[in-house]
Amino acid sequence: MQNHPHLTYLDIVSKGKELNSFLLSFFPNSKKIYVKGNYPGLKVPFREIKVSKNEREGSTLPSFFYAYDTSGSYTDPSEGVEIGKGLFPLRAEWIKQRADTEFYEGRFKGNGQIAAKQKEPAFKNGYLDPSSRMPLRAKKGKGVSQMYYAKRGIITPEMEFVAIRENLGRKDFSLRQGQGPLYRQHTGQAWGTSIPEEITPEFVRKEVAAGRAIIPSNINHPELEPMIIGRNFRVKINANIGNSAISSSMSEEVAKLLWAILWGADTVMDLSTGKNIPQIRELIIRSSPVPIGTVPIYEALEKVGGVPEELSWEIYRDTLIEQAEQGVDYFTIHAGVLLRYIPYTINRLCGIVSRGGSIMAKWCLAHHQENFLYTHFDEICEILKTYDVSVSLGDGLRPGAIADANDKAQLSELFTLGELTKKAWDHDVQVMIEGPGHIPMQLIKENMDLELKHCFEAPFYTLGPLTTDIAPGYDHITSAIGAAMIGWFGCSMLCYVTPKEHLGLPNLDDVKTGVIAYKIAAHAADLAKGFPGAQLHDNFLSDARFQFRWEDQFNLSLDPLTARQFHDENLPQPAAKNAHFCSMCGPKFCSMKITEEVLSYAKKNNLTPEDALEEGMKEKAEEFKKIKNIYI
Amino acid sequence: MQNHPHLTYLDIVSKGKELNSFLLSFFPNSKKIYVKGNYPGLKVPFREIKVSKNEREGSTLPSFFYAYDTSGSYTDPSEGVEIGKGLFPLRAEWIKQRADTEFYEGRFKGNGQIAAKQKEPAFKNGYLDPSSRMPLRAKKGKGVSQMYYAKRGIITPEMEFVAIRENLGRKDFSLRQGQGPLYRQHTGQAWGTSIPEEITPEFVRKEVAAGRAIIPSNINHPELEPMIIGRNFRVKINANIGNSAISSSMSEEVAKLLWAILWGADTVMDLSTGKNIPQIRELIIRSSPVPIGTVPIYEALEKVGGVPEELSWEIYRDTLIEQAEQGVDYFTIHAGVLLRYIPYTINRLCGIVSRGGSIMAKWCLAHHQENFLYTHFDEICEILKTYDVSVSLGDGLRPGAIADANDKAQLSELFTLGELTKKAWDHDVQVMIEGPGHIPMQLIKENMDLELKHCFEAPFYTLGPLTTDIAPGYDHITSAIGAAMIGWFGCSMLCYVTPKEHLGLPNLDDVKTGVIAYKIAAHAADLAKGFPGAQLHDNFLSDARFQFRWEDQFNLSLDPLTARQFHDENLPQPAAKNAHFCSMCGPKFCSMKITEEVLSYAKKNNLTPEDALEEGMKEKAEEFKKIKNIYI
Repeated sequence: MQNHPHLTYLDIVSKGKELNSFLLSFFPNSKKIYVKGNYPGLKVPFREIKVSKNEREGSTLPSFFYAYDTSGSYTDPSEGVEIGKGLFPLRAEWIKQRADTEFYEGRFKGNGQIAAKQKEPAFKNGYLDPSSRMPLRAKKGKGVSQMYYAKRGIITPEMEFVAIRENLGRKDFSLRQGQGPLYRQHTGQAWGTSIPEEITPEFVRKEVAAGRAIIPSNINHPELEPMIIGRNFRVKINANIGNSAISSSMSEEVAKLLWAILWGADTVMDLSTGKNIPQIRELIIRSSPVPIGTVPIYEALEKVGGVPEELSWEIYRDTLIEQAEQGVDYFTIHAGVLLRYIPYTINRLCGIVSRGGSIMAKWCLAHHQENFLYTHFDEICEILKTYDVSVSLGDGLRPGAIADANDKAQLSELFTLGELTKKAWDHDVQVMIEGPGHIPMQLIKENMDLELKHCFEAPFYTLGPLTTDIAPGYDHITSAIGAAMIGWFGCSMLCYVTPKEHLGLPNLDDVKTGVIAYKIAAHAADLAKGFPGAQLHDNFLSDARFQFRWEDQFNLSLDPLTARQFHDENLPQPAAKNAHFCSMCGPKFCSMKITEEVLSYAKKNNLTPEDALEEGMKEKAEEFKKIKNIYI
Repeated sequence: MQNHPHLTYLDIVSKGKELNSFLLSFFPNSKKIYVKGNYPGLKVPFREIKVSKNEREGSTLPSFFYAYDTSGSYTDPSEGVEIGKGLFPLRAEWIKQRADTEFYEGRFKGNGQIAAKQKEPAFKNGYLDPSSRMPLRAKKGKGVSQMYYAKRGIITPEMEFVAIRENLGRKDFSLRQGQGPLYRQHTGQAWGTSIPEEITPEFVRKEVAAGRAIIPSNINHPELEPMIIGRNFRVKINANIGNSAISSSMSEEVAKLLWAILWGADTVMDLSTGKNIPQIRELIIRSSPVPIGTVPIYEALEKVGGVPEELSWEIYRDTLIEQAEQGVDYFTIHAGVLLRYIPYTINRLCGIVSRGGSIMAKWCLAHHQENFLYTHFDEICEILKTYDVSVSLGDGLRPGAIADANDKAQLSELFTLGELTKKAWDHDVQVMIEGPGHIPMQLIKENMDLELKHCFEAPFYTLGPLTTDIAPGYDHITSAIGAAMIGWFGCSMLCYVTPKEHLGLPNLDDVKTGVIAYKIAAHAADLAKGFPGAQLHDNFLSDARFQFRWEDQFNLSLDPLTARQFHDENLPQPAAKNAHFCSMCGPKFCSMKITEEVLSYAKKNNLTPEDALEEGMKEKAEEFKKIKNIYI
């Protein structure tokens, strides 16, 4: 949506030392704050939104709201961030303290041409030199994955970090429950799981140990601010970036990364398939406070000139190791596309629409052999566990059209992903399961339920799903519907879909529109699950709206400048920011203004809700008792 | 979304005789066609989208797709439409044939200053003179509502018209079921109702007689192309237009009307609250092929200078009659806002957010009297039945924030709306029930179920609902999620929400974005309910996508020019329209291209889906049997 002055990549890339203030300017009255943890030096970032004095009487309401913040140091003016410089490696000390890793000469033998020489990234002409850094790996016999620690009862700083992060607003919320409408929250429907009132580091540990949640955090990505993906936590969203052979350059991709995390992407996948894949990835990882995912088969395919038949396990294995050494936090691996499932796709309307899935299908058929990702899965896990790379088991046979939803090809693969989940867990490798795609609404829950059952509650990570195929150009909307629903039903992370889906590579506007559509879906899902404290954001915003605190309403919204711009199209005068009406209804027809008068009358006459019962409502009282209490 | 050259009101208003071709130009390869009915002269419009030859082998596939068409003669180049001229009164003859109505000297005693003098609209300086037309009313003792006829077993031309309209694509679909993937449709979940394979005029009659569906069709709106609202029919959408005291002019509102129906609005509400309400309305009704709804209390309030306390039954009654004489097809009437419910809103986060609701609440409190819309409801029905104006029972106490959803104020009013439904039906007045508003996902179904139960299955008509409050500027998305869900659960019509909701009056871009978001929601709901033939549209589009028929993919989409523009941003060359890839993945990584090769291999080797079973899938076969068959 071009609802802000159209931004170009250069607008971000060229900011230099002004980058922080430029990015923060999209969130007026916001500032970065940190909440300290118990682990020495551990501090968890939030975005504090200052609001003006609340006019609701008799309340002692806070004048700020804490928002979950995925934007890293880029919105902290006290940090000197600059594109190309890389971020401060906040986890480096945590990893070092565990004393179970070692630096070594990386292999980087692919076409990446990156040679690791030293422990810290070096700079060339003032900018990060991707060929300088030496990778870390687990010492022989040591486990370094969060799941490894979790199973052994160890609470890592990463776990404490995500516990504090997830608890956002809850303590305040819990303390004030029942103190007026601002602290109400509806009872959720969490479909058989139960989300605790407070998320403790121990709860995080238990969930990771059980495989119900993952903390993607490669030991070679120390710049990461840890986050958690699991259905007992906030629903997360992923943004895909990456160039293709047709379009996009290196700095464009970093600009997209910053833009995506500014608006709220929890993880970012670099799906580059064009030139310079390793160089782009190095820059992205060193610049990213969020986990970075990749689909290694893309780079492997580039290495063999784009001919799937030429792929081999050895080429793929090298690619995995090189990417793990760079610091990729999770890999999508299409190990469930089995030779015997491919014929199921013949009578589909849209065949195989996963790029990785179609590559592996072609390889399988050409060689008359089983998928090498499946046959070498144990070796893959050996690599992943050495760096704590999480595996995202790809849905290579996901439906690419409503007509193909929940068919045999899709579900056969899902069962195999369950089998692979168990294998990965045996190696203490963290696992999530990828899901579709295109599903009509009535079949969405079946997807979620089958995943939970057959993949043993490993976190589900879906692309949308799109609920109809008829609106190319608007697939962020067709899919936000499905994403909100599957998030409610238990999906842990929603992969965004931009307006460009099916049509072309997203630009900055598309990235922003996609991220915001998915922040909406994820938050709607949190509300529906009854995630404690989630409704506080809605309540704060609606409270500002009802009290005509226009500036607060804008500032509390997901996209303050757009909200303000829409308001100002008709009423640009500064005085209108205090007006008790807007251009939608005008002053005489403003229901909120009239309600103010109604409430003032009620107050003057000491009218209470109980009065309603006395004036003839008694016969309805019995009916109300049958309706379940809707307030906590 | 400003994804097309930014259009102004003048772009539409100034087209003159070029209006048809201008509007049709938004749908390349489309033309208006008509399907004839049995009633003499009855013809039902569709938009035929021509597609190129389908490359799927062995099929005899049609080279066209019929789309439901709400745009009236404005997209028929053989009709000479022009803004200000009014439309051809296609129903005039049908109404005349029934011989139960009479022309009379209208009252128009309000501030509208419209005097009706003759039976046909007259022209002044070549344009429609709103002061010229003489209204129709039922002859004494005669019933003229569609419900009146339906209950007496009479099938009207209106009923036949909507039956043909609703059957769109079904016959073709039914005939070809099982003939390959293009004619598959998933089994729907219709929540206890059953939608027949074919919609006959008799089925329409039964549904209208039972009150489960309405055909809003004032006898003074002969220009109307009839449509039906009920949960056994396609889910419909409404677009709100109308000026406010702050913004917008008369021609702007007609431009918004045309723009809304071009993109697919099934009905349009004129919510004008500023100057010249009757003049704007007259122009809108004479120009509208879709039912027009209003909230008469707005005009009544203007008559008393905007002071709710000054309202009276008499002023309101006169307004109702004047608007009925003009041809308004349905009125929103907030008769369920009872004095005793008002105290329930005191402890809400957002009080009363319905304009009509807040006006009536203020009146009730100021006079210490029961709502005059409630106490005079029988007299209201007497007026409505005289013209066949449907009543949309307003939800004046709907929640305006997530925090207030499903509360006592809202549900108390709902029960009263049920009581009023019965009353209206006693007068053969067609009824629908308005619903919220702001509801978190887990409470949406409860809304629908309570409505069906307490309002006896009268059609539900909801505003969204928004599933979160945190995204002003994107409320078309927050609400499309809720709208799709409640449409699936049984809601018959979805009132759109534009990106400007809560912020200002929508402009043309906002109207289009709102309509398309809601077309998506309504269609997703049709798919989920299993409306026969609904999936054909998805299948046609996905088929074109899979075969790289780019032009067809664009033309079959809800917004062809935007889809094309998005594609062309990176690949503008004409040759790219035949390319077997796009800029998203580039040629080497195009899954669909690789799948083509996979399928070609499978064909060469006579691989069938059964082969999958033989190669080790037998152990999975039992599991598959447990999954319900997903194809019809």
